[in-house]
Amino acid sequence: MEFSSKLLEKAVNEMAQLPGIGKRTALRLVLHLLKQPKEQTQLLATALLQLREDIRFCSRCHNISDEEICDICSNTSREQAVVCVVEDIRDVMALENTGLYKGLYHVLGGKISPIDGVGPGQLNITSLVEKVKSGQVKEIIFALSSTMEGDTTNFYIYKQIKDNSVIISAIARGIAIGDELEYADEITLGRSILHRIPFENAIKNS
Amino acid sequence: MEFSSKLLEKAVNEMAQLPGIGKRTALRLVLHLLKQPKEQTQLLATALLQLREDIRFCSRCHNISDEEICDICSNTSREQAVVCVVEDIRDVMALENTGLYKGLYHVLGGKISPIDGVGPGQLNITSLVEKVKSGQVKEIIFALSSTMEGDTTNFYIYKQIKDNSVIISAIARGIAIGDELEYADEITLGRSILHRIPFENAIKNS
Ligand SMILES: [Zn+2]
Ligand SMILES: [Zn+2]
Repeated sequence: MEFSSKLLEKAVNEMAQLPGIGKRTALRLVLHLLKQPKEQTQLLATALLQLREDIRFCSRCHNISDEEICDICSNTSREQAVVCVVEDIRDVMALENTGLYKGLYHVLGGKISPIDGVGPGQLNITSLVEKVKSGQVKEIIFALSSTMEGDTTNFYIYKQIKDNSVIISAIARGIAIGDELEYADEITLGRSILHRIPFENAIKNS
Repeated sequence: MEFSSKLLEKAVNEMAQLPGIGKRTALRLVLHLLKQPKEQTQLLATALLQLREDIRFCSRCHNISDEEICDICSNTSREQAVVCVVEDIRDVMALENTGLYKGLYHVLGGKISPIDGVGPGQLNITSLVEKVKSGQVKEIIFALSSTMEGDTTNFYIYKQIKDNSVIISAIARGIAIGDELEYADEITLGRSILHRIPFENAIKNS
């Protein structure tokens, strides 16, 4: 792709760094911004910079938060001893949308995936194990996506927490195997967390 | 969509202003930036801001340029009296990629489209007509996409320039009717500008 402007080329190349955005799409997006008032570009750039600069992660659950402790963790009307383990903040959003879950979360930040170079050390696993060992947690609910990486991650954590007096469950697999949690419809997802099953049963059936 | 952070919500909403980017895609892109080093977000934001702030359009052909006159217009080895009329700078890029065209361009900035509220006044038509009337131009080549709006725009310009001693041609329609220029393969596109035909013939056959 030959550009008539270095400024344009730079903007397109940076935009094309984003996942799923090829050079052509990047060019289309950048040219769109050029047709809009300057303010739109300024608002976009400022929002991204501020987020990246000021972002915080809840020190308890690792959810994205504007405060030290997120709104979910600091909500005393939620069941503080029930912790749902998810990969990503998008999964928190998906489960919150069901309106059915009243416990807390623990965001791992991914799943163990040797192919992608993600080991347990890069995930928020230690803080979860410590949380369980401290005796604050009555129930852990695994809600990772039901892929090989999800199952591996569940099992890795399971081995480290199973000797504590904690109920370990997994969301009901009403969700099709291989489907990402965030794309599940709200009814299926809501039901799958209400009808969660003991984790031992989940591995027996798989 | 419920967000756990106002900063995140703002960034997603701004990103979702871009055409073809829904809220879910915007969230995926923004979370990707959060996983990358800060520098990536800074480079993206800076590139967009600089482009939007410092962008110039060539005062002759309206192509995006870093200078008052773009590289194509200031290249004296190109045929200065042949002007190819295109909608968009992406069409300039597509034609330049063929390596076959040695004239100049005139970027209209769109096509006449009453449905989208685009009238002739919003396009770079006056400067094109003046260019022709000044007697500098020997040949005008219409290379708008062959849609109803493209044809309308061609004809609108044609009426204003036809009484001058200028050859008016149109790129050969080897390109399928309705196809956007920028998605045409290079061979078809290159051939269509080499085998351009008098504009009067083009309207007879349509
Ligand atoms: Zn929290
Ligand atoms: Zn120019």
